[in-house]
Amino acid sequence: MEKVFASIITIGDELLIGQVIDTNSAWIAQELNKVGIIVKHRVAVGDVWEDIWNALDEESKHASLIIITGGLGPTADDITKPLLCEYFEGKMVVHQPTLDHVTNIFENILKRPMIERNAKQAEVPDVCTVLKNERGTAPGMLFEKNGNRFVSLPGVPHEMKWLMTNQVIPMIPEWYQTGFIVHKTLLTAGLGESFLAELIKDIEEALPAHIKLAYLPNYGMVRLRLTAFGSDKSALETEVAAQFELFKNKVKEYLVIDEDLSMEQVIGRMLKQKGKTVATAESCTGGYIAHLLSIHPGSSTFFTGSVISYDNLVKERMLDVPHEILMTVGAVSEETVRQMAVSVLKIMKTDYSIAVSGIMGPDGATAEKPVGMVWIAVASKEKVVAKLFNFRFDRRRNIELTSTNALNLLRIFINENENS
Amino acid sequence: MEKVFASIITIGDELLIGQVIDTNSAWIAQELNKVGIIVKHRVAVGDVWEDIWNALDEESKHASLIIITGGLGPTADDITKPLLCEYFEGKMVVHQPTLDHVTNIFENILKRPMIERNAKQAEVPDVCTVLKNERGTAPGMLFEKNGNRFVSLPGVPHEMKWLMTNQVIPMIPEWYQTGFIVHKTLLTAGLGESFLAELIKDIEEALPAHIKLAYLPNYGMVRLRLTAFGSDKSALETEVAAQFELFKNKVKEYLVIDEDLSMEQVIGRMLKQKGKTVATAESCTGGYIAHLLSIHPGSSTFFTGSVISYDNLVKERMLDVPHEILMTVGAVSEETVRQMAVSVLKIMKTDYSIAVSGIMGPDGATAEKPVGMVWIAVASKEKVVAKLFNFRFDRRRNIELTSTNALNLLRIFINENENS
Repeated sequence: MEKVFASIITIGDELLIGQVIDTNSAWIAQELNKVGIIVKHRVAVGDVWEDIWNALDEESKHASLIIITGGLGPTADDITKPLLCEYFEGKMVVHQPTLDHVTNIFENILKRPMIERNAKQAEVPDVCTVLKNERGTAPGMLFEKNGNRFVSLPGVPHEMKWLMTNQVIPMIPEWYQTGFIVHKTLLTAGLGESFLAELIKDIEEALPAHIKLAYLPNYGMVRLRLTAFGSDKSALETEVAAQFELFKNKVKEYLVIDEDLSMEQVIGRMLKQKGKTVATAESCTGGYIAHLLSIHPGSSTFFTGSVISYDNLVKERMLDVPHEILMTVGAVSEETVRQMAVSVLKIMKTDYSIAVSGIMGPDGATAEKPVGMVWIAVASKEKVVAKLFNFRFDRRRNIELTSTNALNLLRIFINENENS
Repeated sequence: MEKVFASIITIGDELLIGQVIDTNSAWIAQELNKVGIIVKHRVAVGDVWEDIWNALDEESKHASLIIITGGLGPTADDITKPLLCEYFEGKMVVHQPTLDHVTNIFENILKRPMIERNAKQAEVPDVCTVLKNERGTAPGMLFEKNGNRFVSLPGVPHEMKWLMTNQVIPMIPEWYQTGFIVHKTLLTAGLGESFLAELIKDIEEALPAHIKLAYLPNYGMVRLRLTAFGSDKSALETEVAAQFELFKNKVKEYLVIDEDLSMEQVIGRMLKQKGKTVATAESCTGGYIAHLLSIHPGSSTFFTGSVISYDNLVKERMLDVPHEILMTVGAVSEETVRQMAVSVLKIMKTDYSIAVSGIMGPDGATAEKPVGMVWIAVASKEKVVAKLFNFRFDRRRNIELTSTNALNLLRIFINENENS
């Protein structure tokens, strides 16, 4: 067994001026982890010759596998390919299969004339192994130097992902005899990070050295993750599973799920298993809860639809919230969300519903209703429960906090309903 | 004028196993850029003593300002503070104002007993300047060594942002005589990156050396960004503005907006300026267009609401799509989206509407209706326009592509309507 370390280099000025958020690195790290490769370092550099060159030198010291993304486009700011050619002391040659592939894309898919710039995508350093990119015109490239492997991939996420999945990952077992990495994650809600730490202190301190515990707090919930590395996969799994049980048992009062799932995935699975459906009536979240419920494949089996009543007239006209209520206690009130939840359940003929109304900020606050004040209701045919939340701060964060807490309220509601 | 380089170190195993996407770095880079600091390097390391130590050494070579986030929590996996204490050769002491602040948070805001672990947050190395964190219990810390400045901030985004905005950024002018960085960005739609490059080749090649052009393709649109660095702010702005006009004029046929705005911000601004409103009827996007329209402050002036008709029964019952149409041509058809657009416009009493129905994948495709096939309609009281799109691949990408293209279709529709 060898411990194989990888490093990820992302290239592009847009990463350093903050115009783009790097989602590629996290995805690559996940995939490498699954095949036992430990990502040691991640670095982002601009489209600057010297900085890319130095990053290649530096990362070769930390890691034996270096994944490089970005800078392979057809425009003048993309300098990665000529740089790699010089770094690995090659010369540029036309790669005929890539030229055929690019020509085919333009003639048969895009149906546009190919220009010289596009044909250039088929030129590669003669010292690399070309990795065919079925999702685009820029091929992946594999270089080897002093026992290290360097893989250059385009920065466009779906092209990079296709290349990793179909070209890079399948080669890993041929390259390395890696050990195994085992992760187990559980999700808790309702107890802060420091109190949770206090609760599990004894079992955390008794963990063997090769098993690490991490705390990942997010939107009022905390994920706990155990990570272990070793050569005997099944022994490792058994050992981690035993430790995991100790943690699960200790936090059971706050446990949402003993897997690495998001709250909306937990709800989706519960509903699917029970053959139940849900609808939402959203004011302040503007469709974000509906989006969360429908982002994962297979959501049409449990998610029926929503009424987004951003304007009060929609609350009145479509969700039967009485005009007097809106005029007296207002849109952000227990009365309003209860009516919204009951109405959308009836209209959509679902088993459950969620309704939210609140002040997301920065505008719209009053002395009695500050930014972050949100009423959430969940309903079934038999019962409605409403709860007041007081978040604070930013609009985006409030939208996300409201959505996550609304889903959590539904989770608790379903569990209580089913057990009563 | 000095060129000041910064480096960002993010700490946390979760970044290296891909469990969390790093959004902090992009935001920090943006803020530093605004005050003339050039981010040269970004690096992510795990909660590993040696790796963090090496990163501090390494980044000191690249940059004079090093921003460190993460690893300051109250749990055992957070080792940043003791490490910084040793790295800067200090010893841990209780910082009384921080202890008072933490005590106050527990007594008056959380209303929970404070435990020893929380009080520990008030211990800091005696060699740092404490930066008060009004958003949480972990203070920021400023260290200086060999002429370099190191700022350690918590990784929780809203705490980090508060500290950057209120504590770090205001000190920058006292620390450095930086130059100015000027960015100007325009957004195009309808022409691929390589064709756009061909179109603007001559003016790109004629750019002076201190102005750089970058291409940022995303969801079928391309952003062009000019970046310049110099000491005379107004001369720089004049020069960049002149170059920017050349590019704007060259791409005018494809120009969406001559600012760094998202498509939904462009639509929001158009509608606000014209005093018009919009509603959406969404099937396959499940509320994502509504979310985009409502994510920015002030959206209640133009966004009225939505009917998310994920289930066909909702299309029939709430949006008057005839049962026969759903049974014959089906939900993903021109007839269906036209009716959805007309109905939601009437129900919501808006000036404009958007309707979408398609196959997002991976399930639900047939031979005639493959994954990525989407019908989009936009409507006003006078007119309805529908268009067929064929995306491919991933579910998430299809949801985003559908949403962006639907908003773009509305933009073109509004422009044509107003000019006819």
